[in-house]
Amino acid sequence: MRKYVYLFSEGNKDMKNLLGGKGANLAEMMNMKINVPQGFTVTTEACNLYYQENKTLNKNIQKQIKQKIKKIESLTHKNFGSTKNPLLLSVRSGARASMPGMMDTILNLGLNDDVASSFAQATNNPRFVYDSYRRLIMMYADVVKGLDKSVFEQFLTKYKDQKNVAGDLDLTSDDMLLITREFKNIYYQNLKEEFPQDPYEQLYNAVSAVFESWNNDRAIYYRKMNNIPNSWGTAVNVQEMVYGNIGKNSGTGVAFSRNPATGENEVYGEYLINAQGEDVVAGIRTPQPIAKLKEELPKIYEEFTKIAKRLEKHYKDMQDMEFTIENGRLYMLQTRNGKRTATAALKVAVDMVQEGLITKEQALLNIDPNIIDQLLHPVFDKNVLATKKVIAQGLAASPGAASGKIYFNADDCIKASKNGEKTVLVRLETSPEDIEGVSFAQGILTIHGGMTSHAAVVARGMGKCCVSGASELLIDEQNKVLKSSDKEFKQGDYISLDGSTGKIYEGQIPYQENQKSKEFITLMKWADEVSTMKVRANAETVKDAKNALEFGAKGIGLCRTEHMFFASERIFHLRQMILAQNTEQRNKALKKLIAYQIKDMEDLFRIMSPNPVVIRYLDPPLHEFLPKTKEEKKQLAESLNLSLKEVEQRCDELKEFNPMMGHRGCRLDITYPEIAKMQTTAVITAAINVKREGYNVHPEIMIPLVVDVNELKYVKEIIETTAQEVMQQLNCSVKYLIGTMIESPRACLISQDLAKNAEFFSFGTNDLTQLTYGFSRDDSAKFLNDYYVKNILLKDPFVSIDTEGVGKLMKLAIQNAKKANPNIELGICGEHAAEKESINFCNQLNLDYISCSPYRIYNARLAVAQAAIKNGRNL
Amino acid sequence: MRKYVYLFSEGNKDMKNLLGGKGANLAEMMNMKINVPQGFTVTTEACNLYYQENKTLNKNIQKQIKQKIKKIESLTHKNFGSTKNPLLLSVRSGARASMPGMMDTILNLGLNDDVASSFAQATNNPRFVYDSYRRLIMMYADVVKGLDKSVFEQFLTKYKDQKNVAGDLDLTSDDMLLITREFKNIYYQNLKEEFPQDPYEQLYNAVSAVFESWNNDRAIYYRKMNNIPNSWGTAVNVQEMVYGNIGKNSGTGVAFSRNPATGENEVYGEYLINAQGEDVVAGIRTPQPIAKLKEELPKIYEEFTKIAKRLEKHYKDMQDMEFTIENGRLYMLQTRNGKRTATAALKVAVDMVQEGLITKEQALLNIDPNIIDQLLHPVFDKNVLATKKVIAQGLAASPGAASGKIYFNADDCIKASKNGEKTVLVRLETSPEDIEGVSFAQGILTIHGGMTSHAAVVARGMGKCCVSGASELLIDEQNKVLKSSDKEFKQGDYISLDGSTGKIYEGQIPYQENQKSKEFITLMKWADEVSTMKVRANAETVKDAKNALEFGAKGIGLCRTEHMFFASERIFHLRQMILAQNTEQRNKALKKLIAYQIKDMEDLFRIMSPNPVVIRYLDPPLHEFLPKTKEEKKQLAESLNLSLKEVEQRCDELKEFNPMMGHRGCRLDITYPEIAKMQTTAVITAAINVKREGYNVHPEIMIPLVVDVNELKYVKEIIETTAQEVMQQLNCSVKYLIGTMIESPRACLISQDLAKNAEFFSFGTNDLTQLTYGFSRDDSAKFLNDYYVKNILLKDPFVSIDTEGVGKLMKLAIQNAKKANPNIELGICGEHAAEKESINFCNQLNLDYISCSPYRIYNARLAVAQAAIKNGRNL
Repeated sequence: MRKYVYLFSEGNKDMKNLLGGKGANLAEMMNMKINVPQGFTVTTEACNLYYQENKTLNKNIQKQIKQKIKKIESLTHKNFGSTKNPLLLSVRSGARASMPGMMDTILNLGLNDDVASSFAQATNNPRFVYDSYRRLIMMYADVVKGLDKSVFEQFLTKYKDQKNVAGDLDLTSDDMLLITREFKNIYYQNLKEEFPQDPYEQLYNAVSAVFESWNNDRAIYYRKMNNIPNSWGTAVNVQEMVYGNIGKNSGTGVAFSRNPATGENEVYGEYLINAQGEDVVAGIRTPQPIAKLKEELPKIYEEFTKIAKRLEKHYKDMQDMEFTIENGRLYMLQTRNGKRTATAALKVAVDMVQEGLITKEQALLNIDPNIIDQLLHPVFDKNVLATKKVIAQGLAASPGAASGKIYFNADDCIKASKNGEKTVLVRLETSPEDIEGVSFAQGILTIHGGMTSHAAVVARGMGKCCVSGASELLIDEQNKVLKSSDKEFKQGDYISLDGSTGKIYEGQIPYQENQKSKEFITLMKWADEVSTMKVRANAETVKDAKNALEFGAKGIGLCRTEHMFFASERIFHLRQMILAQNTEQRNKALKKLIAYQIKDMEDLFRIMSPNPVVIRYLDPPLHEFLPKTKEEKKQLAESLNLSLKEVEQRCDELKEFNPMMGHRGCRLDITYPEIAKMQTTAVITAAINVKREGYNVHPEIMIPLVVDVNELKYVKEIIETTAQEVMQQLNCSVKYLIGTMIESPRACLISQDLAKNAEFFSFGTNDLTQLTYGFSRDDSAKFLNDYYVKNILLKDPFVSIDTEGVGKLMKLAIQNAKKANPNIELGICGEHAAEKESINFCNQLNLDYISCSPYRIYNARLAVAQAAIKNGRNL
Repeated sequence: MRKYVYLFSEGNKDMKNLLGGKGANLAEMMNMKINVPQGFTVTTEACNLYYQENKTLNKNIQKQIKQKIKKIESLTHKNFGSTKNPLLLSVRSGARASMPGMMDTILNLGLNDDVASSFAQATNNPRFVYDSYRRLIMMYADVVKGLDKSVFEQFLTKYKDQKNVAGDLDLTSDDMLLITREFKNIYYQNLKEEFPQDPYEQLYNAVSAVFESWNNDRAIYYRKMNNIPNSWGTAVNVQEMVYGNIGKNSGTGVAFSRNPATGENEVYGEYLINAQGEDVVAGIRTPQPIAKLKEELPKIYEEFTKIAKRLEKHYKDMQDMEFTIENGRLYMLQTRNGKRTATAALKVAVDMVQEGLITKEQALLNIDPNIIDQLLHPVFDKNVLATKKVIAQGLAASPGAASGKIYFNADDCIKASKNGEKTVLVRLETSPEDIEGVSFAQGILTIHGGMTSHAAVVARGMGKCCVSGASELLIDEQNKVLKSSDKEFKQGDYISLDGSTGKIYEGQIPYQENQKSKEFITLMKWADEVSTMKVRANAETVKDAKNALEFGAKGIGLCRTEHMFFASERIFHLRQMILAQNTEQRNKALKKLIAYQIKDMEDLFRIMSPNPVVIRYLDPPLHEFLPKTKEEKKQLAESLNLSLKEVEQRCDELKEFNPMMGHRGCRLDITYPEIAKMQTTAVITAAINVKREGYNVHPEIMIPLVVDVNELKYVKEIIETTAQEVMQQLNCSVKYLIGTMIESPRACLISQDLAKNAEFFSFGTNDLTQLTYGFSRDDSAKFLNDYYVKNILLKDPFVSIDTEGVGKLMKLAIQNAKKANPNIELGICGEHAAEKESINFCNQLNLDYISCSPYRIYNARLAVAQAAIKNGRNL
């Protein structure tokens, strides 16, 4: 029979998957002979079984729980449900990953009328006993029966008002007895049943309720945000109660072994005398800073700081601990690696290396790459933030803070920004044409779209704050009005976005700038020392390229040339090119574009010298560039000697049912070889010009969306011929590579043929994921939510590479490509290239580099180092 | 040095890839000691080299040609370019596959002024010599220099008018001399150069010109229609001229060893006395039936019929031959397996088995499955057809003939059809909602869309004539006008479509019905005897199911349940279901739908008993079903207690950027489990009802578009629970299978997991091809044309399975699936399942069955037999 219940003494810190984080750490502390109240853990497997068996706690598990209770009884010399020396219990959730506050807790379980009455007599402390009992009734009603706490709290407030007392501590034992009675009444009135007197009934229901809380709304949401699979389940910890509310010599507290905000090496935390655990967190009474404990209970303080250091040394990380003092005796109730700000994380890690506590590699592994973002994006002034009203919750699509006047289209936004206004661009969803508006705005808010929507991708690429998918809001783009449930915002009204939480605030909020600390610089140096993959940037503009270099990029891994054509004078010629009726007209428009392209390329080559620059040729479906307004169409028609109707007709013709799978990528070069010719002329001319200035240039030309070797050969031929011509004309030669993006399943399947004709591959995992799943990135957000809720997908495949499907194709592609061309250079340039698990996978695939948006380069550098360390270990 | 030129004596019939069909067969006849004029073949490899080297015939090939000319000179005792006993040559194309009339020919090459003059003296037949010379000038000008024949022909007509003579035979030798002179003048005036006098210049240019003709528009079009790769290239046959135009004892003819129209075992053909080859085909003089030769030149007739029988026996197939009689001596100029009507093909094959000439297997292999279509679809009365004007050429999307009044939307078309009119539905492109209109119409014409467009697929599925992509025509759907270059057609005007040629005719044309012959029945019996895969049908309606059974289907392999909801009263409830705002409303609508679904399923189960019926659950993106007109929206809004605006908003919300990759397939069941529940209730209820009537039912429930094993498990769970409930309720059990469609790359990659949870797989190769390539089937026609022209794609992957990419995924999927579940049933239900090469590939993959539209079942049965024979040989 499978074991579903473990005594703390049977576990250890490495059993988190089974016992949850809290349970494993309680076990570990017990092993370390730290004073921990006795108890046991009901496993995560029991939780999954609970759901499999239609939400019932089966007899077998109940039996195992009962056995462990017996064990605890003999260890503590207390008896569960007994009127003499009763064993009271706490029941707490504890998942594999910490999910603070997301799930439920019940304290003082085991009390009933009889037990309370005799326990009050025995302890001679009826105030404490009935305080405990009334808390149990309220928590049980809330957690097990779903009866909101507020009905109890309302009564309590009223009672205190009537008695004219300020706080709970002013209530007497008689008050507590009375309150307990009234709580039982409230329980009965609302639930039409008596509060259960059978302690085992209380216990089994409490365990079940904690399992239930795994699937409450906020837990589901938290897991989704933090990429925690629903399938993990939670464990439940059942533990002997110790009482911080037994008198002046008792108390409870929460503390960190170092300062979680700054990283300073000092115990940091809060405590309350004569209180139970949740009082500290609940904010009913104002807790004292831990330093005060030194004065109040110096021995306890000393003991606690010793334990804190010991635990820190043992776990090799800053600890976040809960403790209770019962009649002058210190009990540890929890320890875990503490959450901290990005600043603190860096300081703690670097300090610990310098203290000899951990190695550089451990320091690198201890830091979550995602928090690095916090160091680069401005944040709101926290004091002001707390006073502001949240008008809606969207998705935290791109971190940072943005406060500004709202505008409903790119043009208005640009105009206002140029006039010196701080702006926020608000759109139903963005299109590639909005890109200039995005670059001017402080932040972007979209009503539709997920974490990987166009707006989100572009914003992250620019390091710009973005909140997407704020579907609670209504937008009327035509009349320029944004509506929340109770208010309308017009053009020019202020709102503020927090891209790290997805919250949208009314009004303006001032920023605070984040500064890079010396610890940050040290850590990044360590990271680069151990890395095996290079980090390049996705960048097209001078600003992005300069940033990329400053952030430590070793070249550009993806220059999306189409982004270079969005400025208004350029897009006009691009449109002329698209609507050209013959090769002649097309060439005329291309000639106009080539001058811009040469200038852009020269800039990038200069900035990036001597690093490589990967230039991806025109990729998106042409209709994305088409004129939207009648005015634009008219102007275009005139320039092409066409009627407005003809332009409209041609625009209609270019519309596609499924543009993602339509006329785009190298398909454009095959229909219009002039495009590849123009782009090659620009790249090679720019390279030669810049080389002559004395720079070291390494252009790598990348052909997008190849699905057949003949496409690659055809475009390659154009590139080689054109490059040859340009070099002859300019009487100068320059080295360049030709490669292809691997972004369709077929490209992976025929990689051997492709590798014979390419000097490098770059995996475009965005499109590869779309095609492997058949998930349109623009549409799937609508239904994927149900996939997470129903445990069908555990992770968003657009965020973290799907190793079973997409990853299998990548592996296949690399194996076969290496057979044909062992020296082929391999990279990745999709959105995944900044996500730590994906980076780790890429490292396992032995990619040469990853390429991500400039603002995620620090993040990626750290993740690349972590991957090298982890995979190095496995070798 | 590679050999690019082969004497006929150096080749044989198995060297078609290198020598082309004509060259290989000339070599074979020479080996058989049949009287063939001497000559040689320039290989297809030389053609490919010609294109690789920028359209030049390199020195090495020229040298090899010259060497062979020397050889021919010594064999024939004639000299090329000599004034005495000159060797004259014919230069003819000859590709691997016969492409009749698509490429160019030049006769009488080697003549110049000097040669002609002395040859005229030597033969004492100046009329013949100058007749030959003037033909050479015209053909050379046309083929090598691109000067249209008409300028010569116009002069000839004028000349004959002036001389008041009826035919060429009435022209004297003086006339011919004069005409030759004038042809040279015309040549000079138009081309600003003299007709070349150097025979080798003539020859090299002629060979080059034939290579060039490989890429003329009609050849490219022909190849595309017939799936012939551009990369094959053509060979060129250079052959000693023999003269059918030397006098009354000479002549030329074309004949078949059997009647190509009926298959009767009798020599069938035509000849002309005193004429050169092209005269027979060109229709300038009316040729005599071959039977007349028996009277006119009995010995020659006897010799020819003997050769015909000998060749037929040798090639084991009906032969199509060209011959020339020169001064009473018979020369064979060509033999090849003859093209024939479907009727003839069957009769010839079956007769030859009965004559002991070939085995049943050979008979089966001799018939192209595609021609079977001709036997099932009505055809136009050929005599009337010839008198009708072609108004445009579209794609031959679905064979058959349709004549009717045009209507521009489904409603008008249905109304008119119900009034007894014959109708043709004309649309810019069709949408799934047009399906009822399609079923009422005689045929469908679309302006957009390729061979695999929605209209084409649906039409083939129904065995309905369809011409798609008729882009020469303009359509104004609103004003109900169709415009050709010179005429307008209004609603109610007659047009006629030939779905086998893609031609669109003005007016009405009467039909002829095709009848199934006894040979047809015999052949199909033989086919089934050797087959290893079963053939099922894609069918939803009673009519289709009955047809499928009659045509020999062994069950239904794909019942697309969404098709069952398009009828107007049903789609209303479907729309209610889609727009339902909560589960309650959705269930209410589903309840309405379930009654229809049960009835439909009962019908199919009854018809198909005891064969299996695969029922695919709702698949397409929901927005495909949404109301289009305001009226429909209003009605829907009322029924759902919504405002019109709300309905419009909801419809907008359902719009997707890439619906092919959007909210469809099992994704619908995951969002709305009620749908799977309703469909299961219907399937199981119907199965039980019909079982109780005594039928043998085998429902196979198929879950579409699975990409993750958890999707499959989730929907399977719903199906199993629901089925269990229904069976308990009705107190009767029924066996059923649950399987999944494999139509995404990821499904192939995780097939091992899927196979553990499925009893069958059916490959949906349409979507699998779309996703593997990233080609949207609805959009790719626009750019794929360039892919064919530029030799990038050799075959349409939507027509024939791409074995390198899609096929590799299928293979992988099967290998891994069999590991997990060795008994899993494997089928295919995409459009590919009726295409012979794809069927052959499926046979190699050991699929259990293929499933295609009812009207392609005969075709598929034959292809399945051929695959079994071919793959059996390999074992």
